[in-house]
Amino acid sequence: MAHLIIQYSENLDSQVNMTNVCSVMSGVMQKTGLFPLAGIRVRAYPVMHRSIADEHPENAFCDMILRMGEGRTDLQKSRVGTDIMAAAEVEFSAQLANPNFALSLEIIVISKLLSWKKNSIHNRLRPN
Amino acid sequence: MAHLIIQYSENLDSQVNMTNVCSVMSGVMQKTGLFPLAGIRVRAYPVMHRSIADEHPENAFCDMILRMGEGRTDLQKSRVGTDIMAAAEVEFSAQLANPNFALSLEIIVISKLLSWKKNSIHNRLRPN
Amino acid sequence: MAHLIIQYSENLDSQVNMTNVCSVMSGVMQKTGLFPLAGIRVRAYPVMHRSIADEHPENAFCDMILRMGEGRTDLQKSRVGTDIMAAAEVEFSAQLANPNFALSLEIIVISKLLSWKKNSIHNRLRPN
Repeated sequence: MAHLIIQYSENLDSQVNMTNVCSVMSGVMQKTGLFPLAGIRVRAYPVMHRSIADEHPENAFCDMILRMGEGRTDLQKSRVGTDIMAAAEVEFSAQLANPNFALSLEIIVISKLLSWKKNSIHNRLRPN
Repeated sequence: MAHLIIQYSENLDSQVNMTNVCSVMSGVMQKTGLFPLAGIRVRAYPVMHRSIADEHPENAFCDMILRMGEGRTDLQKSRVGTDIMAAAEVEFSAQLANPNFALSLEIIVISKLLSWKKNSIHNRLRPN
Repeated sequence: MAHLIIQYSENLDSQVNMTNVCSVMSGVMQKTGLFPLAGIRVRAYPVMHRSIADEHPENAFCDMILRMGEGRTDLQKSRVGTDIMAAAEVEFSAQLANPNFALSLEIIVISKLLSWKKNSIHNRLRPN
């Protein structure tokens, strides 16, 4: 189970194809080999109302949270975080080149004891 | 204080009445007897951009987080989680019958020390 | 790094200017002296689907989460939480005066080990 949740300021919608960003991030997560494909859920949604730093009209942010099930080591978590961040820096390179952009990522672990899941995609993607 | 936050892929909007799902989940939470009615806040919102598993166009997800105040036992938390998940499996039975749906729930406890609340609904709902 | 994330029921949109609320909250955060201006990201977004308490049509909620980097003391966290909550009670005083409103705030600390950031606003706002 791996959820990448991307929250961003809506002024990015005219600059970046966020559905494509979701695809790119899923690819990064797949390459780590840490997550079964069926469990990867990347999504992104804009927020309309905001006050970022000094409220320069071009200020924008993209804030990512990766929630994953227990069982990966700190080193594995650190590697996937580094990989996602590196890919995000490429996707948002135009924004980072201007002094108006804040990019962030945090990894949060999902408690095994206090979580539940049912995923019908697994059967379709499981090799015969 | 009990917040059930439901994030889902927007392709579910044409299949499921999400306001009704919120009502059903509130009913499940009420029945547990663990939460005062005035403190129950269930909400759901769609995310437009996504990459789910193999990106089959019918892929969809519903991811729920239940945030509740401290003071319930692990057994109580486990029971309310099981009840919510069971109700969700009924609400999304059509989706789970197809190999394109991922349903998930996690319970997260709200720190008492680092939280604040003011709720004017309590007075109205408190018995005289 | 300080993220204030405000989730609210969409019926507040006709009552409150949420962009202004974001500005006010940023001002409160700035005054604490705990956060560099470039790192402050306040945002607010409505949720359409909901079931709040007894489902009175005027029921509304505003739920805030402040995510901040490690390194502040519990006393500092408590103070900024108290300040934000006090400001929110002013902004939503009309709503709190009616028996249909639930306001809440929680502070969550961002793990230093499992977070990444890149912020191009810092250079612009740093004094020469």
